[in-house]
Amino acid sequence: MTTQQLTEQIRKKESFLCIGLDVDLNKIPQHLLQEEDPIFAFNKAIIDATHQLCVAYKPNTAFYEAYGLKGWESLGKTIEYLNANYPEIFTIADAKRGDIGNTSSMYAKAFFEDLGFDSVTVAPYMGKDSVEPFLAFENKHTIMLALTSNEGAFDFQTKTVGGKELYKQVLETSKTWKNHENLMYVVGATKAEYFADIRKMVPKSFLLVPGVGAQGGNLQDVCKYGMTKEVGLLINSSRGIIYASNQTDFAQAAANKAKELQQEMEAILSL
Amino acid sequence: MTTQQLTEQIRKKESFLCIGLDVDLNKIPQHLLQEEDPIFAFNKAIIDATHQLCVAYKPNTAFYEAYGLKGWESLGKTIEYLNANYPEIFTIADAKRGDIGNTSSMYAKAFFEDLGFDSVTVAPYMGKDSVEPFLAFENKHTIMLALTSNEGAFDFQTKTVGGKELYKQVLETSKTWKNHENLMYVVGATKAEYFADIRKMVPKSFLLVPGVGAQGGNLQDVCKYGMTKEVGLLINSSRGIIYASNQTDFAQAAANKAKELQQEMEAILSL
Repeated sequence: MTTQQLTEQIRKKESFLCIGLDVDLNKIPQHLLQEEDPIFAFNKAIIDATHQLCVAYKPNTAFYEAYGLKGWESLGKTIEYLNANYPEIFTIADAKRGDIGNTSSMYAKAFFEDLGFDSVTVAPYMGKDSVEPFLAFENKHTIMLALTSNEGAFDFQTKTVGGKELYKQVLETSKTWKNHENLMYVVGATKAEYFADIRKMVPKSFLLVPGVGAQGGNLQDVCKYGMTKEVGLLINSSRGIIYASNQTDFAQAAANKAKELQQEMEAILSL
Repeated sequence: MTTQQLTEQIRKKESFLCIGLDVDLNKIPQHLLQEEDPIFAFNKAIIDATHQLCVAYKPNTAFYEAYGLKGWESLGKTIEYLNANYPEIFTIADAKRGDIGNTSSMYAKAFFEDLGFDSVTVAPYMGKDSVEPFLAFENKHTIMLALTSNEGAFDFQTKTVGGKELYKQVLETSKTWKNHENLMYVVGATKAEYFADIRKMVPKSFLLVPGVGAQGGNLQDVCKYGMTKEVGLLINSSRGIIYASNQTDFAQAAANKAKELQQEMEAILSL
């Protein structure tokens, strides 16, 4: 999917919501545990109930790997279901990978080719040759961590390096990499006041924004400082939507929560 | 496994060699492709031929994920085979993971509990709460990227942050984290002159050292500056050993290459 197609979907659905599929067997409705594949059954129900309210889904790979082979299988079925039934949806493998060149190529192959995701999140610590192998894929997107939404973001990301904070150094440097137009960036909503500065450095790039809701970030502030003419934002919500209820009404409850966010977004887009 | 047990193994085998199991189906002997699980068949043969010459094996997860479900299955069979037959071996999941707290807990569960590795590599970019969930596991080890062996290491890791290079900031800061005694660090052999400084900061920690051989690092130099009284080094070699031959003699050829390195190590240990 191209970023232009993504923007078209955002305009059409009046939503720039991304739903995080972070499935924990301890948190899903217990009646689903009788299913052959409870994780996929949960995802399928959530997706069917919410796909008109969002433009992207983001399974975090950790939650699947924790269940071993079965988890990896559930992840495969989820992305296959999305691609087969809702090809207009932008898919994100939240994997935070990154390794030396030939190894990053294998990760890119895993997520873009074998699984068929539109995008994957990567960590920047190992620099250029750890990210460029991902960027080489046409119409695929590499979403690099810049400023994350957790407390540990202040350990290194906001430390000053050569006159600017590390996350800004990461943004600047990444713009010199080959096929950098395939980059998007993770910027946490919990630090909305940083968005103005970030937009000076990456005026057009899409930003994937976690931290709205459960982690305390504010949607209005993020949009005020971070939105571009082509929107340029994907706001992620995971727990706040998918665990809205742990009863048999869980899918409808998730849709209600997604609808709330979609309506907030619709109002912002119409300004 | 405790670090004391690891050191005992090193003394016993007169080796601090770690063999990287980065299995690429395009590089293994082609007769193995007829096997039901070529990746596992390759690993099993390599392990059986080399286990007395090394103290650790390190599968890089990228090479398994690239083959999807089948690859993940091969990884599971490999670690199961190691744990069942060679429990004295230290096992490393080279996964370079790291995410917000509850998500890192899922990764820790995946590698330490579900798969049963002794250790896992993690990336430091997201800071304290992305690493501490790994450190909470007793007798398990978290090997954090400090200074990697690739060119991209100079993009951010060696940039000066608050008066010292970022990788030194990472080393310093990590020593304040809970259960930091469960940390080891990745330090590339290609930068042997850095080891003296690093040892001032982490005098006792085990360092996992990639980049000897294929990437051009020198074993003598690394040991000169990096070795401690308890050795404190695991030297990794991947391609130089496992792809020594792509004919039917591949396992013996790998053993010969491993033996060369083991003998160099034996000479160094006896000094």
